[in-house]
Amino acid sequence: MPSEPAPAVDGGVCVISGGVGAARFLNGLLGVVDARDVTAVVNVGDDCTVHGLEVSPDLDTITYTLAGAIDPGRGWGLVDETWRAIEQVRRYATSAGPGALGGSDASGWFSLGDRDLGTHLYRTSRRRSGAPLSQVTAEVTAAWGLELSILPVTDDPVRTVLTTADGRTLSFQEYFVREQHAVEIGSVRVDGAERARPAPGVLEAIGTAGALVVAPSNPVVSIDPVLAVPGVRDALLARRDRVVAVSPIVGGVALKGPADRLLRELGHEPSVVGVARWIAPLAATLVVDHADAALAEQVEAAGVRCLVTDTVMSRTGVGAALARTCLSAALGGPDPKATT
Amino acid sequence: MPSEPAPAVDGGVCVISGGVGAARFLNGLLGVVDARDVTAVVNVGDDCTVHGLEVSPDLDTITYTLAGAIDPGRGWGLVDETWRAIEQVRRYATSAGPGALGGSDASGWFSLGDRDLGTHLYRTSRRRSGAPLSQVTAEVTAAWGLELSILPVTDDPVRTVLTTADGRTLSFQEYFVREQHAVEIGSVRVDGAERARPAPGVLEAIGTAGALVVAPSNPVVSIDPVLAVPGVRDALLARRDRVVAVSPIVGGVALKGPADRLLRELGHEPSVVGVARWIAPLAATLVVDHADAALAEQVEAAGVRCLVTDTVMSRTGVGAALARTCLSAALGGPDPKATT
Repeated sequence: MPSEPAPAVDGGVCVISGGVGAARFLNGLLGVVDARDVTAVVNVGDDCTVHGLEVSPDLDTITYTLAGAIDPGRGWGLVDETWRAIEQVRRYATSAGPGALGGSDASGWFSLGDRDLGTHLYRTSRRRSGAPLSQVTAEVTAAWGLELSILPVTDDPVRTVLTTADGRTLSFQEYFVREQHAVEIGSVRVDGAERARPAPGVLEAIGTAGALVVAPSNPVVSIDPVLAVPGVRDALLARRDRVVAVSPIVGGVALKGPADRLLRELGHEPSVVGVARWIAPLAATLVVDHADAALAEQVEAAGVRCLVTDTVMSRTGVGAALARTCLSAALGGPDPKATT
Repeated sequence: MPSEPAPAVDGGVCVISGGVGAARFLNGLLGVVDARDVTAVVNVGDDCTVHGLEVSPDLDTITYTLAGAIDPGRGWGLVDETWRAIEQVRRYATSAGPGALGGSDASGWFSLGDRDLGTHLYRTSRRRSGAPLSQVTAEVTAAWGLELSILPVTDDPVRTVLTTADGRTLSFQEYFVREQHAVEIGSVRVDGAERARPAPGVLEAIGTAGALVVAPSNPVVSIDPVLAVPGVRDALLARRDRVVAVSPIVGGVALKGPADRLLRELGHEPSVVGVARWIAPLAATLVVDHADAALAEQVEAAGVRCLVTDTVMSRTGVGAALARTCLSAALGGPDPKATT
């Protein structure tokens, strides 16, 4: 709940989003501005087909988080979940022996709760009847009572594919869930990106937002796949002076997931400086944590203003304060140096 | 459990099967002969895709019944079931408003329990990875500890389509579940049948069985779709002297479902006499209930031996006794007239 009346932001706020980090940032943002003024443009490179069902992990993580329904322990899926369907699948798979299920369907490592399955069943049904992902997402979001716009960056299929240092090809879920990201990556590509078109509203939201935020999500496997959809990078570039990025790297490590390792493996410096060099073409400001205050000058040397504040959103109130800082910077607030 | 040592039947027993009636008959049969000697050749014309998942109602009804896991109250699905996934789907559908979900996905009328979903998720997964339905069925059957062979009549897609008297086209599930079969039918066809091939083992089972039984299933929408797969009718015809049919009509009505109405609507007499005329080309013997003893002569006038016994399997022991009667008749038992 907003602690004070939510200010209107002319043109609204547009957040380029991955999953968990973006969800937490958006949660803070909704404590600061009216939800109807917020648009999240969300990565779908992690989307996958599991047991024939269409699963959109980042869209669902954002939806469940903002609805207050995310499981706080796991950090994904729904709270108060049961696992009867997937337990039955495992019984069959165990009986049939190794190899019966492959890919994301090898349910030993990819789990789906019963209530969560309802989301995937609905999405799959609607998609098969011809509804684009963006429309289904709007329906799912509305059913949870959310008033912000959650937009998949594209309605077309794009898939993040990782190639390991030893030449194996992995889907994002194979890398992230099955391998627990404990494998060296040599390159990342986004299959289908070159043919994808931005979903309705995406370019408009980027083009007209009063403030734009690149959420503290994985640069390589969350934000880059959003930017890979033709038109999105250019649209953001045109609004660079209003774009504020929040570093997902704090003290040289990712708060969650493999962003630090991936940056290193792909030739970036796994620090706020590496993040700065990556995002400088697109963002006028990079927000880093106090833990990285000493690197502020190096960040600015990469060509981006550096703002130092609390960015670790595990404590109540940090997300909202971080959102205020971002909005202030995007809308032309006080000299960021003054806040360090 | 068999009440006495299960006799071996040379060549085994092959049962042409629909869903509920066949499942009850098979349950009785497994009390009489070794399960490894039994093959069920099962209708798949009712199969449907729900929320992207492949559902095989007759295969599952037989499997769950023989595993002792069918819900006794509903007569379909699993006992001790929960409904969390489908309740979530309904929340979305209610929020999105009428028309969001169509066909079998209109979950107001087509329900799937959480454990049951596990079966459909596994089947869909395996099918998408290239496994034919017959192989998946063998895996599912084995996981439930069943030792009989449950064979879909074909691995190819066949769909029973009903046209109403006023010209509307309905899938089987639309007719049976949504409309509660309270609509007049003008014709029935089996889409895909002419291109379908019998699944591995089907023609062999029919060709070599020591005894063949046409289960007390709906003639029009359960048995005819099995016979519609090219080769099956001819294979059965060649074994006519070993084929015993059990009438699904007792006292002029179907024990379950719309068999009586469908027979009438499609120009058959809704009685054991109508059943006799329908099955006489394929079966040497028709088993009817005591309730229809007075029609035995008319049955025989249709060109099929008439055997009268208890056929209503709601009481314990009736199924096993009925199975013994069928086996005895198929294998050349006492003169059926003597048992009336």
